[in-house]
Formats: sequence, structure tokens, C-alpha cells
Amino acid sequence: MNLGKIYVVGIGPGNMQDITVRAYNTLKNVDVIAGYITYINLVKDEFSEKEFYVSGMKKEVERCEQVLEIAKSGKNVALISSGDAGIYGMAGIMIEVAVDSGVEVEVIPGVTSSVAGASIVGAPLMHDHATISLSDLMTDWDVITKRIDKASEGDFIISLYNPKSKGRVTQIVEAREIMLRHKGENTPVALLRHVGREDQNYTLTTLGDFLNHEIDMFTVVIIGNSKTYVKNGRMITPRGYKI
Amino acid sequence: MNLGKIYVVGIGPGNMQDITVRAYNTLKNVDVIAGYITYINLVKDEFSEKEFYVSGMKKEVERCEQVLEIAKSGKNVALISSGDAGIYGMAGIMIEVAVDSGVEVEVIPGVTSSVAGASIVGAPLMHDHATISLSDLMTDWDVITKRIDKASEGDFIISLYNPKSKGRVTQIVEAREIMLRHKGENTPVALLRHVGREDQNYTLTTLGDFLNHEIDMFTVVIIGNSKTYVKNGRMITPRGYKI
Repeated sequence: MNLGKIYVVGIGPGNMQDITVRAYNTLKNVDVIAGYITYINLVKDEFSEKEFYVSGMKKEVERCEQVLEIAKSGKNVALISSGDAGIYGMAGIMIEVAVDSGVEVEVIPGVTSSVAGASIVGAPLMHDHATISLSDLMTDWDVITKRIDKASEGDFIISLYNPKSKGRVTQIVEAREIMLRHKGENTPVALLRHVGREDQNYTLTTLGDFLNHEIDMFTVVIIGNSKTYVKNGRMITPRGYKI
Repeated sequence: MNLGKIYVVGIGPGNMQDITVRAYNTLKNVDVIAGYITYINLVKDEFSEKEFYVSGMKKEVERCEQVLEIAKSGKNVALISSGDAGIYGMAGIMIEVAVDSGVEVEVIPGVTSSVAGASIVGAPLMHDHATISLSDLMTDWDVITKRIDKASEGDFIISLYNPKSKGRVTQIVEAREIMLRHKGENTPVALLRHVGREDQNYTLTTLGDFLNHEIDMFTVVIIGNSKTYVKNGRMITPRGYKI
């Protein structure tokens, strides 16, 4: 029997507009679409003729093992992540699970949340930037705090993924304190909530003030560099052009 | 007369597959497509019925002023960048030029080069990462070197944009020396050339060896963190799952 192929597909923020043509066509052409229930819900209406394999949260390894079995059975299968599958998504673990199996894994890139979120508020990511996840489920917190410190010292624009969840509320407080060692209180901050979803909304605030606004696990936090400014409601990091 | 609207559109790597549906439809619906000649050449066959405004390299401010005039004349105009327009692209300067004009500027996000390039070689960007441009045309070189140093010290995965051009060849050599203060010689490095174009190709190498391979201005260089490895030709940064 022929082996199927695995596609790890970044669907972008989650609507059918910010998905790439390649990702859309891949989902149209596979036999099975697999993924965490929240992401399956984002695509199931558009691809309702497909077979779905739905798995629960924090079952990432099992999900990948099951996807590998589906491919071994001869079916082409797309494992979906929101945003880009290669940025805190399913691409790495899927390749690790399948790397010795003989089954081909292709990664289809997508628009990651910080990029989609940045576009809503203007152009905050125009210069050198660092992306950091505040989730310490699988990464030691002292590794994360060191990265926040070094990125701040280097005057990077910083995008924080997974800033807060119901059970994880102190990390963002500590992250802010670390950033304030090197960045000013008036540094612009964008809180980008539910980017690309129906209830998308955002707040433009500052490093001094941003903890007074709503932040949840569906929020991306972008903190500017020393040159970032807000004008007429747009957050801009200049690249250096003389205007 | 009604004002037109400006869309700053990231077209992704440059083919008609890795463009988002929103970006594609925006280009289909505007009156004029504007941009640097290289990018216009990537889209002109697909949108051949459009009016084009083509401008030369290093004319970014004039390009934006001209786009603003087109919008003021009542036409809807898309200013295109490759990759994502908000990452070293045209979004920032376009907003800066138009911010007081009354003309609306909407940024349409796209797949940036490091993300598209990463997908080709596996999943190197799975953990915290920093994006740095080595172009010192508008940024002091000591700012850039400090960022390379801090990102390396923080054990970030690093994506280098604009690593080298005909007239700028020493920066990548110095960047490597700085990274070697904190990263090992065997750290995996991906050289991703002409990502998404017909002549796309790549080399998987190491921090010790990568300068022995071809690098040009259409190359993105991804340097792993301390946990990144290569197996069966795939470059993977593990996120920490137990497999």
C-alpha cells in the first residue's frame, strides 16, 4: 500500500481571508483534516465534505502519532495549526514524530499572530524584533526571563505569545518588570485580542499602564522599541527613512 | 471628490500560492498596483488588467508620496511588498507619509521570508526567536551588533534578513563572530535562497561553516538555538514535548 503524505498547515489567524492560497488548496485536496478542536471549528464549515480527526488540548504527541497512522494507512492528511505551524505550532513535533517513518511531512507556512495583529494597529514590527512565549509549561521560567531581559537590553520590539491564562497570571507581571529595566514606561504597547476572529479587538497603551487592561490567552502583546510611537491611533516603529 | 484608499499589501514570498486570499482579492479589486519594479514583476501577469505605478529602488519616500497622490485623486491603490509589508517592508513608511492626510491606510498581512524559508527546511523557528536585519544603511552598525550579541546571549533562534549585498560583505562575517561568543560552532544554520521563487534552494550547514556557502541579498539566514538539531535533512528546534 502506498503511504499518504502529511501536510502541517498554518491556517493564519483563523478566518478564510488571511489563509494562503496554498494552505486553502491543501485543505481542499487532502483526505483528512486533523487538529485541536478549536482549530477544526474554524475550518469545518468551509471544508465540510472532509473527514476530520479531532483531538483534545495537551494531547499533541498523541495527535501527531494518530496523524502518522492515518498517513500510513494511505490517506493524505493535513494537521492544522492557527497562525504559522512552525511558530509555537505543530510543525516541529509532527516532524519529530514522523522523521524516521518514511512518511513525508511538508510544512505549509501561514501568517503568524504577531504579524496579523501588527497589521491591525499599524506597523509596529518594522524593525528588529523578538518573539517570546510566556508559557513555562515546557520551558524553564529562568530561560524565558533571561530572554525577556536580553531582548529588552537589545532594544528589540518584543511580541509576547501566551501572555496569560487562567492558571498562569504572574508571568506577565514579572515580564513587565524585566522590560522596565531597559525600556521606558511610555513605550507603546499593543494588546491584540482574538486577532482575525469575529470578536477581534485591541488596545493601544504603554509599558507603564498595559496591565490595567484585559489580557487573556488569545492576546498577543507587542511592546515597541525606543523609537516606536503612536500617532492618530496608529502604532509605528520607524525604520529610519527621512520624511 | 472622494478620496481613494491605500492598501499596503504583503504578497508573501512572491508566488501566487503563498499569497493570502485577502491580499489576492485586494489586488484584484484596487484600481492601481504600486511598488518597486522587482515586486511588480512578480504580480503583473496575474493582474495584467490593472494600472501599475512602478518605482525604482531606494525611492521609498517618493513612492509613498506618489501612492498618496493616487489615493487623493480618488483611486484605490495597493502598495506591495514581498513577504509581510510590516516587517522591513513598506507599511511603516506609507503610514508615516499618509498619517495626517485623511487618506485611510490598511495593512494586509503576509507570510514573511523567515517563516516561508523555515517551512522549507523543517521547523527551526518553533521556539523564541529574534529577527535582525544586517542592513546598516539606515541603522547604526553598533545598534545591530548589540542586538546580535544580546539575541545570541539569550539563546534565541536568529533570522538574519539582508545578510549581504554586492557592496556590503563584512557584516555577516562580524555577525558570525559575535554569535560564536554565545553559540557553538555546530549550531545548525539554514541558508534559504530565493524563497518561494522559481530558483528557490537552500543549504543546511553550521555556524562554524556557513560562510563557505553562497549568501546574497535574496538569502535569509536562520541560526538555531542550543537545542536545534538536524535529522534526516530536517532542521528542528524542539519545543519540549516528550516523544
